[in-house]
Amino acid sequence: MFKKILVANRGEIAVRVIRTCMELGIKTVAVYSKADKGALHTQLADESICIGSGPGQDSYLNMERLITVAKETKADAIHPGYGFLSENVEFVRVCADNEITFIGPSVDAMSKMGAKDIALETVKSNGVPTVSGSNGIVPTKDDAEQVAKEIGFPVMVKAVAGGGGKGMRLAQEENELERAFEQARSEAEKSFGNPDVFIEKYIRNPRHVEVQVLADQHGNVVHFGERDCSIQRRHQKLVEEAPSPVVSKELRKKIGESAVGAAKSVHYEGVGTVEFLMDQDGEFYFMEMNTRIQVEHPVTEMITNVDLVKQQIRVAAGEELEYDQEDIEMSGWAIECRVNAEDPVNAFRPTPGTIQSFMVPGGYHVRVDTGVFSGAVIPPYYDSMVAKVIVKGASREEAIMRMKRALQETTIEGVATTIPFQLQLFDDPRFQNSDYDIHFIEEHGEELIKALEEKGGSNWMRNSS
Amino acid sequence: MFKKILVANRGEIAVRVIRTCMELGIKTVAVYSKADKGALHTQLADESICIGSGPGQDSYLNMERLITVAKETKADAIHPGYGFLSENVEFVRVCADNEITFIGPSVDAMSKMGAKDIALETVKSNGVPTVSGSNGIVPTKDDAEQVAKEIGFPVMVKAVAGGGGKGMRLAQEENELERAFEQARSEAEKSFGNPDVFIEKYIRNPRHVEVQVLADQHGNVVHFGERDCSIQRRHQKLVEEAPSPVVSKELRKKIGESAVGAAKSVHYEGVGTVEFLMDQDGEFYFMEMNTRIQVEHPVTEMITNVDLVKQQIRVAAGEELEYDQEDIEMSGWAIECRVNAEDPVNAFRPTPGTIQSFMVPGGYHVRVDTGVFSGAVIPPYYDSMVAKVIVKGASREEAIMRMKRALQETTIEGVATTIPFQLQLFDDPRFQNSDYDIHFIEEHGEELIKALEEKGGSNWMRNSS
Repeated sequence: MFKKILVANRGEIAVRVIRTCMELGIKTVAVYSKADKGALHTQLADESICIGSGPGQDSYLNMERLITVAKETKADAIHPGYGFLSENVEFVRVCADNEITFIGPSVDAMSKMGAKDIALETVKSNGVPTVSGSNGIVPTKDDAEQVAKEIGFPVMVKAVAGGGGKGMRLAQEENELERAFEQARSEAEKSFGNPDVFIEKYIRNPRHVEVQVLADQHGNVVHFGERDCSIQRRHQKLVEEAPSPVVSKELRKKIGESAVGAAKSVHYEGVGTVEFLMDQDGEFYFMEMNTRIQVEHPVTEMITNVDLVKQQIRVAAGEELEYDQEDIEMSGWAIECRVNAEDPVNAFRPTPGTIQSFMVPGGYHVRVDTGVFSGAVIPPYYDSMVAKVIVKGASREEAIMRMKRALQETTIEGVATTIPFQLQLFDDPRFQNSDYDIHFIEEHGEELIKALEEKGGSNWMRNSS
Repeated sequence: MFKKILVANRGEIAVRVIRTCMELGIKTVAVYSKADKGALHTQLADESICIGSGPGQDSYLNMERLITVAKETKADAIHPGYGFLSENVEFVRVCADNEITFIGPSVDAMSKMGAKDIALETVKSNGVPTVSGSNGIVPTKDDAEQVAKEIGFPVMVKAVAGGGGKGMRLAQEENELERAFEQARSEAEKSFGNPDVFIEKYIRNPRHVEVQVLADQHGNVVHFGERDCSIQRRHQKLVEEAPSPVVSKELRKKIGESAVGAAKSVHYEGVGTVEFLMDQDGEFYFMEMNTRIQVEHPVTEMITNVDLVKQQIRVAAGEELEYDQEDIEMSGWAIECRVNAEDPVNAFRPTPGTIQSFMVPGGYHVRVDTGVFSGAVIPPYYDSMVAKVIVKGASREEAIMRMKRALQETTIEGVATTIPFQLQLFDDPRFQNSDYDIHFIEEHGEELIKALEEKGGSNWMRNSS
């Protein structure tokens, strides 16, 4: 097992990783930017080292500095968390060159899953359902037209190097295709330095259903069931749950096996998430694989009683899986809210600043993962998530009631947060009845905000300043 | 179901009850003494009413005032929590007279379990194992000698009205008996206004093993397995866990059935705990039944996934049990620490005062129940418990590691707490190997404190001021 792990991240995920290391008796090195001086993860780690100034490229994205610190502190492994360098193939290579274990998949698996077109081809050849499409790059608009006619409208034009919704355009009918093609290419060029796009059949009213997988270095792969992350705003998940209300036991087995198949197709190692779109008939289509621990992993932990970060560290150290697929049991219903420092009634504008007062919810089946505290400063440089509130209930209904209770007792003074918006969502019968798809916030977010404003905006409760 | 519940308590248990009411959609009335103005339970309840000055007898023990407030606020039930009026038969009667549901057992069940001699006789006649003894009050020292000779030394002399270790004296041999008899009677007279004592066989090296039961008004009783509360200081539990390391599956079934038998012997309704002493051969003996929700109930909730306060409220409203015995499953290992505002290196002297800074632990399988926050004042009038930290692990070993991690990340500034002492305990191989009995702290507490002092007293870590 590792003796010392450098955690190349910040905020709640750095805290999350350090906690598990403490429980495993592994020493930790925290790194921080000048903007994160005194942050919780630096308080909890055995050593803390400043690696540069606030902006990510000057600190958390600085590979050379991270490797130097790892060597100086004699860390034998690096945990990348999510975001930053967690899916950067070059960083995985640099770690290997310096004989430091990167806690994550191999260069080959990460590369394949990182390129959307290759990922699709690879999993497809392993029997994983994919949306019909161009099977590769579509270089010209004439090619685009031909592909679209073959698979039928509506179609989606997508950047090969895409992610987070960037470089994606929908064409409902033929006359929208040229514009979609040009816009997607231009945005892809701007965002990723690569204009290449491919084309896929567009799925109507889909849910976002993703499967957590875990693979060791000995070819064993298991899944821990699915998460439903259909509540998204601009492709950023706001609320996640496990299991999915639209997945039956039979479907779970089927989609789980597909996810395992996707992981096996690249000889995956570590924790990973296979994301699918699911249509109203329960047909599902591979979207992409996230080759890291995800923000929403706690909902799976809550219903399976498995510490996924512990398992991730174990398999990175070469240990075999502790579980066969049939050993993994799920019970109860878990929901997670991402509490972001954003003002919902102000177009979700980020609200960096000082948290004057911070009181987390507690009690039965409530979990909080956060990197902040009373008096902590939210720097403007990073993502705006300040806490994750996770609950479990015997049923979905009970979980929703518990989440409402937990959010109501949360106090965050000094910065506006998304909590009032999320409370409004949990009161919505469409959410309660699971009557929504991934476009719900896009289509009905304004209604929710209007209802919020009628109650006095973000100030209608004690949760926000 | 009830529409509004008055919570006749304070601190973490008032918060605990209010949380479940919020999740059930039941309105709540908090009551508070002047010393508890602004306390967390008053912030979370729908209504909050001041019921008097600091000392318990002027507020939380004032039956008349509580009933008046319940009537004025149209509460249809009162939850007594633990302590205060929770096991006061007169209060149960007064609630009934005023047509307010007391959330707890009947007058008859509470009376029988409240008188130790009657309780013993009652459960014994229902087949529950009891320690051999005098079978009733022992009026004179001659009677005491005769009984002791019959059952054999060592024997314990115990106040009929006893509790919390008051009015109890051990006689190892015959020549110690007279003194034990007189001292127990005199302390009983002073503490309870009733000098009557009885005599029992003394169990060597016992563990404190207690069983959680739940009974509805229709004669159904189930148990949720046992808790081990052998780590006690002066009969006050400091650390509790579920399951017990000394209880096998077969023994669990046997002791569970005995606990159900004890509850049935008084036609019990509600949640209750049947406390046993268990000797090194796994023989167990009924001690007493606590006719309320207990401080340590969360460890049972963690391993059974049952909200005991929810169940308590349901059955008080007349609903039938949701569970048969065979539906109740246990998994994992839970440990609770009572974090008291007491200074371990100063003879555990209470440390009332203002909490300058309060940061609770979080993350995977960590639960915190508390009534305080940064800036909260701990009044001198009540018990010194400020928080309960509860963890769950896949194994006892994992739970211990998680508890150490959780306590290490807890910050309480401004008052000394028991956390450093508890951390010292979790590092002790005897605790880790479950090699102890109820006398462990009595016998080895000084060692632990000495080790603590060598590390710099209560200040050796960031947990205490």
